[in-house]
Amino acid sequence: MTDSAIVARPHDRLAKELADDLVAVNALIRARMESRHAPRIPEVTAHLVEAGGKRLRPMLTLAAARLCGYDGPWHIHLAATVEFIHTATLLHDDVVDESAQRRGRPTANLLWDNKSSVLVGDYLFARSFQLMVEPGNLRVLEILSNAAATIAEGEVLQLSAAQNLATDEDIYLQIVRGKTAALFSAATESGAVIANAPDDHVRALFNYGDALGIAFQIADDLLDYQGDSTATGKNIGDDFRERKLTLPVIKAVGQATEDERAFWKRTIELGRQDARDLDHALELMAKYNTLAATRNDARHWADTAKSAIAALPDHRIRTLLHDLADYVVARLA
Amino acid sequence: MTDSAIVARPHDRLAKELADDLVAVNALIRARMESRHAPRIPEVTAHLVEAGGKRLRPMLTLAAARLCGYDGPWHIHLAATVEFIHTATLLHDDVVDESAQRRGRPTANLLWDNKSSVLVGDYLFARSFQLMVEPGNLRVLEILSNAAATIAEGEVLQLSAAQNLATDEDIYLQIVRGKTAALFSAATESGAVIANAPDDHVRALFNYGDALGIAFQIADDLLDYQGDSTATGKNIGDDFRERKLTLPVIKAVGQATEDERAFWKRTIELGRQDARDLDHALELMAKYNTLAATRNDARHWADTAKSAIAALPDHRIRTLLHDLADYVVARLA
Repeated sequence: MTDSAIVARPHDRLAKELADDLVAVNALIRARMESRHAPRIPEVTAHLVEAGGKRLRPMLTLAAARLCGYDGPWHIHLAATVEFIHTATLLHDDVVDESAQRRGRPTANLLWDNKSSVLVGDYLFARSFQLMVEPGNLRVLEILSNAAATIAEGEVLQLSAAQNLATDEDIYLQIVRGKTAALFSAATESGAVIANAPDDHVRALFNYGDALGIAFQIADDLLDYQGDSTATGKNIGDDFRERKLTLPVIKAVGQATEDERAFWKRTIELGRQDARDLDHALELMAKYNTLAATRNDARHWADTAKSAIAALPDHRIRTLLHDLADYVVARLA
Repeated sequence: MTDSAIVARPHDRLAKELADDLVAVNALIRARMESRHAPRIPEVTAHLVEAGGKRLRPMLTLAAARLCGYDGPWHIHLAATVEFIHTATLLHDDVVDESAQRRGRPTANLLWDNKSSVLVGDYLFARSFQLMVEPGNLRVLEILSNAAATIAEGEVLQLSAAQNLATDEDIYLQIVRGKTAALFSAATESGAVIANAPDDHVRALFNYGDALGIAFQIADDLLDYQGDSTATGKNIGDDFRERKLTLPVIKAVGQATEDERAFWKRTIELGRQDARDLDHALELMAKYNTLAATRNDARHWADTAKSAIAALPDHRIRTLLHDLADYVVARLA
């Protein structure tokens, strides 16, 4: 158990390696989520920021900067920026998805209201821009403001594609790149840029973040159908019930017979579902082995992430990032 | 009529003075509201951006830059930035207020849905940051990112203060500075900064924008109780029905007898209103002359705006800005 437990948790080893930086990031996040005038803001923000999130995205920024030899102060700001963008997105996502739970706790829109979630999300978004301006690095500003636009575009695209059976694997990848991978790759790229790393290192870390983000989201979408709800804080089949076309379903729709297509049309496009439909959906995914195929895709992207940084100089953090890519898909039994 | 019509519409004269710049701003707005992947974005945005808005905020940026002798290209980007921030705010406001009408047309949240309004607002917000990064001017970035945070903070503050009878004139002013004046002053200040104007000119134009924004919002809140609904696109008493504590009511609450206080508590704090309550509210405002007092406050801020720019060098645009301040309160018969 001991050995595998160590191997299994590169995320914790990365957190240990970056412990001092993370303390600084958390202090900066707490300072910047304050509002002299509107106490509702830190209340709502604290609910999310202190809910035991893994700080994965800010760790990627810190890791990239340290891996590239950075010893200045600004990676802390960029890491906090990335976490604020992420938190703002979560607040707005929960409004859009009408979610009641996140990380096993009631969502902010449920505890307060949709209005607070929308406006506090806007505040954190604006705060993230203030934070990213402070290092005074225009290239970093371009990376992070482009990421913010790509994220929002991916969310809108998901909105219109979600219940449309014409959504294929290409569109799915586009959505995933927008809503998840854009922030992962901006996190690693901006860490490398603030460290003034050579162009090929910047590109390698961008590619790592992009592939890691895609692997992470595919794994998440897969776990929705085969995960254990105590680990994910979600119930099996939530995406099906919310009529989200994710990869396991898209692969089944792509191979569907006429009858099966009618089933998907009724349950996903038209949203007419009864209690037994989830089981039938799982049967169709089993028939075409789409959970296994989705798992392979996730592993492929984790491999892509590892290859991206293979040529970087040897470094303890490089090894941790390599292991992190394995870990993201190791959850997929 | 001819003379007074000319005097009465400094806004149109400013638009004429800045006609070429405005053509460029509109072209940039149209180009940047596109989305290759998500056609929902330009649909929703066009509904608002092309709804005959007066482009008041971007004109302020253009006017400040030109008044300070700017002849570079970047004031166009800053003006488009300001309009995008404004449009994003409108989209989110209409979700938060559950509005059905804006500028006499159905709102985007009614035509599409709240989800689209939230996410397209996020997209425009992100686009505004991309636009403001492009001129590569860090001081401008600070001004505009600070304004974005102040706006969001003002909106959250309004959310918690709106139905609370303890909201006094100081808190009202804080909210107005946040939700309205912060963008006016950032518009004028960033125009002056991009033109490399001397510090006292920058300060003068900041103060002008701040005071003009406050005058504008007070006038708007007053017109809600005495305006003509064809001009404002709103119905008399909307704020009362939505239980918004604006200046005319705050002034009446401040002088209320015990019985009157109970009336305000029931209608605003508890939201228990019947059809005759608006008339009684108007009677109480008449009793204490609060509409006239509110009108005086608006005029005071318009005067403050005019004084702020009085010491700037003589210039056609300075005169137009002076007249614009008069115009904002001239609507208040």
